[in-house]
Amino acid sequence: MPAIAHLECSRCHARLDVAVPQTVCTECAGAFYVRYDLSSAKGTAARDKIGAASPGHPSPGMWRYSSVLPDIDPVTLGEGWTPMLPSRRYANVFLKEEGVNPTGTFKARGLSLAMTMIRHYGITKVAVPSAGNAGGAAAAYAAAAGVEAHIFMPKDVPLANQVECTVYGAKMTLVDGLISDCARIVNERKQAEGWFDLSTLKEPYRIEGKKTMGYELVEQLGWTYPDAVFYPTGGGVGLIGMWKAFEEMEQLGWIRPGKNGLRRPKMIAVQSAGCAPVVSAWDQHQPVSQMWQDAETFAAGLRVPKPYGDYIILDILRQSGGTAVALSGEAIFASLRDWAANEGIFLSPEGAAATAAYDHLLSSGFLQPSDRVVLFNTGSGSKYTDVVARTLGLTDPDRPNPDAPQ
Amino acid sequence: MPAIAHLECSRCHARLDVAVPQTVCTECAGAFYVRYDLSSAKGTAARDKIGAASPGHPSPGMWRYSSVLPDIDPVTLGEGWTPMLPSRRYANVFLKEEGVNPTGTFKARGLSLAMTMIRHYGITKVAVPSAGNAGGAAAAYAAAAGVEAHIFMPKDVPLANQVECTVYGAKMTLVDGLISDCARIVNERKQAEGWFDLSTLKEPYRIEGKKTMGYELVEQLGWTYPDAVFYPTGGGVGLIGMWKAFEEMEQLGWIRPGKNGLRRPKMIAVQSAGCAPVVSAWDQHQPVSQMWQDAETFAAGLRVPKPYGDYIILDILRQSGGTAVALSGEAIFASLRDWAANEGIFLSPEGAAATAAYDHLLSSGFLQPSDRVVLFNTGSGSKYTDVVARTLGLTDPDRPNPDAPQ
Repeated sequence: MPAIAHLECSRCHARLDVAVPQTVCTECAGAFYVRYDLSSAKGTAARDKIGAASPGHPSPGMWRYSSVLPDIDPVTLGEGWTPMLPSRRYANVFLKEEGVNPTGTFKARGLSLAMTMIRHYGITKVAVPSAGNAGGAAAAYAAAAGVEAHIFMPKDVPLANQVECTVYGAKMTLVDGLISDCARIVNERKQAEGWFDLSTLKEPYRIEGKKTMGYELVEQLGWTYPDAVFYPTGGGVGLIGMWKAFEEMEQLGWIRPGKNGLRRPKMIAVQSAGCAPVVSAWDQHQPVSQMWQDAETFAAGLRVPKPYGDYIILDILRQSGGTAVALSGEAIFASLRDWAANEGIFLSPEGAAATAAYDHLLSSGFLQPSDRVVLFNTGSGSKYTDVVARTLGLTDPDRPNPDAPQ
Repeated sequence: MPAIAHLECSRCHARLDVAVPQTVCTECAGAFYVRYDLSSAKGTAARDKIGAASPGHPSPGMWRYSSVLPDIDPVTLGEGWTPMLPSRRYANVFLKEEGVNPTGTFKARGLSLAMTMIRHYGITKVAVPSAGNAGGAAAAYAAAAGVEAHIFMPKDVPLANQVECTVYGAKMTLVDGLISDCARIVNERKQAEGWFDLSTLKEPYRIEGKKTMGYELVEQLGWTYPDAVFYPTGGGVGLIGMWKAFEEMEQLGWIRPGKNGLRRPKMIAVQSAGCAPVVSAWDQHQPVSQMWQDAETFAAGLRVPKPYGDYIILDILRQSGGTAVALSGEAIFASLRDWAANEGIFLSPEGAAATAAYDHLLSSGFLQPSDRVVLFNTGSGSKYTDVVARTLGLTDPDRPNPDAPQ
């Protein structure tokens, strides 16, 4: 594993060292990128050495990429190295199935890395404002690391998030508001309480965990890029992390753009019509988003009214030749049912936004059926059991029982 | 992949061929084992070739063992090759984390294989009596295979099972009774309805899927056996499948018992005190179990009043020098909370029965702390969200909100 060289601000490029825990840039409040000296990982020979299990860690998961991750003893629950599933109906579509991570979502990757660093620094209390799944993952990794976690979530998050936070032993507070209100409460109280603030992009390491999705998709496609990546975008850390991964892999010589016309994928940020700050900014050619008013969507993970890293996300969409798309709740739910009934995969509502967006961009002509694409299912549908049950009317005691004896 | 040589009855050793679909032994109604000519897979060189991904299937999962599985195009959703997690507290304990399979449980392995064969035979309608999670997995793989599935479950199964069956498009019937009542209904109606009966051990292929757990645990431990395997036992197919895997691996020379004192693990069948037919038969030295009356346990998957393969399970416990243990609901729930709060893993109630059983057999002196053991967590705790929420009192609107502003 490489030693961390320094942190670099994503906005003003200021550098900070990592002898002590850092949050955001002290100059401009930008989010940090972790930079390493990656010379020991350089070349395809190094690429071919990744992935080794060891007797003490038989299941390395995303830590197969330890040659490009901090040289710290990991807090791991087996996250990452998730399946890349070919669609049964679309010849050039792959679903990256993040629902089989620990805690059932892609959030496990970021929180594994973040909690690795929290333990490394000897921090004993963290606070996390969350739309739901990050809270659950933070609670799990905090339990694994022996750290006290204070989780703040909207009071109407799926029941699964409330249950997991409770069983993992976190202090859970349900807030009458959105993730932005949760963030405000954490910000107001953290100093007095002695909490380290684990808010999305206000600590530098969740990006490092999420970037492994970029390494994985390239390795699983045979060390090549797809034409497009569809990413359900709440906070957008995964999209930022994958772009960083592509940059690192090119520097390392693990993938060679330009060769045979190879180029980075178009990055597609997918949101819900009920909360679409990135899409709105994209459509208006703005460099940052505006706080979305009255955010409302059953895709709980997309209910982020203003992502902290909006300026990075919008820049990546531009650089990649991608776009941003918002789908109605009806279109998202129709795609969820379509993929369950016809592919055998129970997507999270956020994942179903990505599959619906693919249909949309195929109809609009932005993509062709011959384009090879990766759609991210960021979580398991079963974590939304109560939400989906209500939508399906399954909580109605008078619903029909088709094969029941008459 | 090897061609199937024949089916062999587990009780009377009668042989049947596989030109047409088979159910149970026509002589004695025993469950079948699938037998192959495994000569092409023989030797450690063949062992070292397992696991290759291909461009069309980047995520082989349990199909990494295709050299010991039927030579049929698989119906796969990325099941298997799940993490083997070292415990943070017990030096010689590993948790085999089956909760990260598609549909959130180990049932995915068996149903992937069963549905592979259903599609191969051109069967278009199946019926499945289930305690819950097998029904959900059957619905998913039926959707993937384009097969019509009729699922019969007790009406009080976890909500997640009802939701998943519905979204996957299965015909779901909730029965006022247990899995044994569901099985009776399927049996009465299957001929008139044209359903193929996918009941546990009444079709020969779920064992083949479940046996991959045995291959995986041996490979993940560095091609060696642990001292004991704890297996939550409802129908017990996984325990039967793992024992078959050990037998095959020894025949193949992939593992050499006797060398350095290596021997097969003690197999420990774990049940709930509210439904413990195997434990009762074991304690009374009986070769088969009796139908358990008034079965009742919140570990839904253990609510199987008389497993069809009881005679095989009991024989394996004896051969292996293992045992059978029943835990109270209180002990199971306490272990669930313990592993969540201290290991960061939200076990299914069935998995928590295994962890509780480990504590029990350590106290009793049946096992020593120096024994290396594998505990199976057969499913994700989040599939039991509604059950755990009720037990925790999380559905009470007046519950405390610890960090809420006063």
